[in-house]
Amino acid sequence: MAKEITPRSEDYSQWYLDIVQKARLADNSPVRGCMVIKPHGFGIWERMRDALDAMFKETGHVNAYFPLFIPKSFLSKEAAHVEGFAKECAVVTHYRLKNDPNGGGIIVDPDAKLEEELIVRPTSETIIWNTYRDWIQSYRDLPILINQWANVVRWEMRTRPFLRTTEFLWQEGHTAHASAEEAIAETEQMLDVYAQFAEEWMAMPVIKGIKTANERFAGAVETYCIEALMQDGKALQAGTSHFLGQNFAKAFDVQFLNKENQQEYVWATSWGASTRLIGGLIMTHSDDDGLILPPKLAQVQVVIVPIPKPSPELTEAADKIAAELRAKGVRVKIDTDDQNRPGFKFAEYEMIGIPVRLGLGMRDLAAGQVEVARRDTKEKTNVPLDGIGSYVSDLLDEIQQNLFNRAKAYRDEHITKVDTWDELVNVLENKGGFAFAHWDGTTETELEIKEKTKATIRCIPLDSPEEAGACILTGKPSGRRVLFAKAY
Amino acid sequence: MAKEITPRSEDYSQWYLDIVQKARLADNSPVRGCMVIKPHGFGIWERMRDALDAMFKETGHVNAYFPLFIPKSFLSKEAAHVEGFAKECAVVTHYRLKNDPNGGGIIVDPDAKLEEELIVRPTSETIIWNTYRDWIQSYRDLPILINQWANVVRWEMRTRPFLRTTEFLWQEGHTAHASAEEAIAETEQMLDVYAQFAEEWMAMPVIKGIKTANERFAGAVETYCIEALMQDGKALQAGTSHFLGQNFAKAFDVQFLNKENQQEYVWATSWGASTRLIGGLIMTHSDDDGLILPPKLAQVQVVIVPIPKPSPELTEAADKIAAELRAKGVRVKIDTDDQNRPGFKFAEYEMIGIPVRLGLGMRDLAAGQVEVARRDTKEKTNVPLDGIGSYVSDLLDEIQQNLFNRAKAYRDEHITKVDTWDELVNVLENKGGFAFAHWDGTTETELEIKEKTKATIRCIPLDSPEEAGACILTGKPSGRRVLFAKAY
Repeated sequence: MAKEITPRSEDYSQWYLDIVQKARLADNSPVRGCMVIKPHGFGIWERMRDALDAMFKETGHVNAYFPLFIPKSFLSKEAAHVEGFAKECAVVTHYRLKNDPNGGGIIVDPDAKLEEELIVRPTSETIIWNTYRDWIQSYRDLPILINQWANVVRWEMRTRPFLRTTEFLWQEGHTAHASAEEAIAETEQMLDVYAQFAEEWMAMPVIKGIKTANERFAGAVETYCIEALMQDGKALQAGTSHFLGQNFAKAFDVQFLNKENQQEYVWATSWGASTRLIGGLIMTHSDDDGLILPPKLAQVQVVIVPIPKPSPELTEAADKIAAELRAKGVRVKIDTDDQNRPGFKFAEYEMIGIPVRLGLGMRDLAAGQVEVARRDTKEKTNVPLDGIGSYVSDLLDEIQQNLFNRAKAYRDEHITKVDTWDELVNVLENKGGFAFAHWDGTTETELEIKEKTKATIRCIPLDSPEEAGACILTGKPSGRRVLFAKAY
Repeated sequence: MAKEITPRSEDYSQWYLDIVQKARLADNSPVRGCMVIKPHGFGIWERMRDALDAMFKETGHVNAYFPLFIPKSFLSKEAAHVEGFAKECAVVTHYRLKNDPNGGGIIVDPDAKLEEELIVRPTSETIIWNTYRDWIQSYRDLPILINQWANVVRWEMRTRPFLRTTEFLWQEGHTAHASAEEAIAETEQMLDVYAQFAEEWMAMPVIKGIKTANERFAGAVETYCIEALMQDGKALQAGTSHFLGQNFAKAFDVQFLNKENQQEYVWATSWGASTRLIGGLIMTHSDDDGLILPPKLAQVQVVIVPIPKPSPELTEAADKIAAELRAKGVRVKIDTDDQNRPGFKFAEYEMIGIPVRLGLGMRDLAAGQVEVARRDTKEKTNVPLDGIGSYVSDLLDEIQQNLFNRAKAYRDEHITKVDTWDELVNVLENKGGFAFAHWDGTTETELEIKEKTKATIRCIPLDSPEEAGACILTGKPSGRRVLFAKAY
């Protein structure tokens, strides 16, 4: 089974698709660009969602739900937004099918044409700000701190499971504030939440930064992002948090009476993270034997495999171990299959990314021990059954930390300061990762570099120090370095 | 505030709409028939979802996610299904908008017409069974026990918040089995899960039964349902569980190699419950002062109101009470508003359905007591602060039970055995509720009764005893009684 995965060194893209399929994360569907998220993949999303949801609630947010459909005219109301989102989207034009009178099966009923077409939401700023107009009269109605878990559709031309799909699942936060300062603080707070989630739960190190004007969300004043680095040296935008200024409030005429008794437009933020994170998770940790999951996101953290197969004594011992582990809060499964050989099972559990495997044979039992195999390092150790609960619980923490350290070491090695054009090209072409370089601050230069190298400015890191320098392309003065990389 | 609700006796429909609005459960949206579920309403749905999800997982199910869109041709594959679902649905015909070259804003790009139209899922049997074909080869691949939480769209002509909306949120279980017996057992098991959820969580008594052929799900062999009774004497279908036989397996050619090494079509079930349950919850318990929530589904179970307004001493005491309640697992909020008067706040908390209110003034504090007000009965009692945690925790259990008992007493009073046509009409017109009557078993008679009385056969109760009788309309022989009622 494990042999069926294309090695990363041979074809990274194919390796990714193999992992998605063989680790049973997702399937293609008959609908162009839409995937079926299989139970194992959806289980990871459920854990991500629950963790993020708890963090949103701890920071004072509540969930709500807005319509799937957006009247076409709404998209036109915010000038920059329409440019970004009105292009590739699913358009509902009719509301009824009927039997073809000529016997051609069912057809769209031409009499059921909508007066105004509906767009399947690509993002919900417009429908939400149209609603907020009715909810906000005075500063007492602010802030509004709402999040929505939803599906959205963007008609992408080139799709890849999790990373870029026509339909995807995400959360979108939409908040309304009485001042720019408060909205900016919210934007930054949610960026921190995303960074904390990425690092503590996904074990995926990220760089917090600001997007350039060219890469900004359509309708935002400022877009903050977290950027991660995949094993092939390409960057992945893993979450964005936008300060929207008063753009949507003006487009939808949402004003409030402030404390000074004056009418003022409301200040806004929005922030989102999606099933794309699962793509990032795969490409941060996994290897040529299959998926590697950080223990915090694994539905099953430990599998106990009776060797060579289940027997009453082994099952009894496995139950006892499982009970000890569960008492420590560990999520355990006991393998009960009596058809396949241990070698097959080991490969299968490695493929789907179970963090820890316990192999338990009669000789182990007699010796009062169990074989503990780590998925991250593939190390095997014989461990006394006495105290196994604490051992495994500590080991899971260690694996979580090890995955983060490993990914961070790789990421840090792949941030390269470059000061000449040749160095930039060399890093992007050969070494991969981020090139940390000076840039003159213009969109023109950014686009020219993109055309020449296929790399984009991933972000201006928040912690990038002020430093006088010369733009890597034009030689014009620059005040700080930015991160260039090829990206997903 | 409370005065703004239309009394039930005056206009039950308007009372319902008033509750939805004034208890801040949902708003209308600019999209026909679609609602905005506001945070208070969505919080109830989150608790419902979490409780149901846990019950599904306990019975061995896992979650997955299938595409929002269904190719038009899929709907035609199951003959009965297409009749039921292909009619009123949202049809995606194009995938791009563009700027009108004549300056008319954005328009649908005629060059971006889909080769095959996509239907926004009204239910997912077709796309799921098309997928199961790839997942099932042998009996070893069975059963598949999958559930999906999703939004669905049915283009309803007359809509009402929660009860019937164009887009709604629901869960749909879709299972695949190696035998009819196993699939029927699954169908019945999930009906029991729904009934248990309705009664234990929603405090809403339900009758388990089977739908007549005429009311059966389009594509099902047998539809099981739970039926509840609303305060206005109308029935509400609160959940359905379908035995689909081999209908979808045949339509999508899903066969498996059985233990006898023969190819056989797979047996199927599907089962669903939706945000409609929130409508049922409202109409089971609430009164002319607002929403009444069973404690198990209330995000906030207890509110502590300092009287006449917060002060350092009262807040300190409230914090202490809150800590005691939280230690008992109670969800508590402390009112911190210093603008409004207690009377206004009391009405507001009654409106939104907080099950228990604690009023705490300086005199109470001096006397070592607190005023406890129950939302369900509106009773107020002075209770010693000593032991308040246990008192309130027990009270919440009592309220949960009282709501169920009260609803069950009303429901039981409104099941009327009728043996003549006049009795039937009288019950349906004047008393309301279920009329328990003999029926000759034909769709023809059922439809004639519906036309004459606007009542439908809600179900053939599972526990309806065999009893020889004569059909209420035709006088033809009948073997057991069925439940007639007007319904939502």
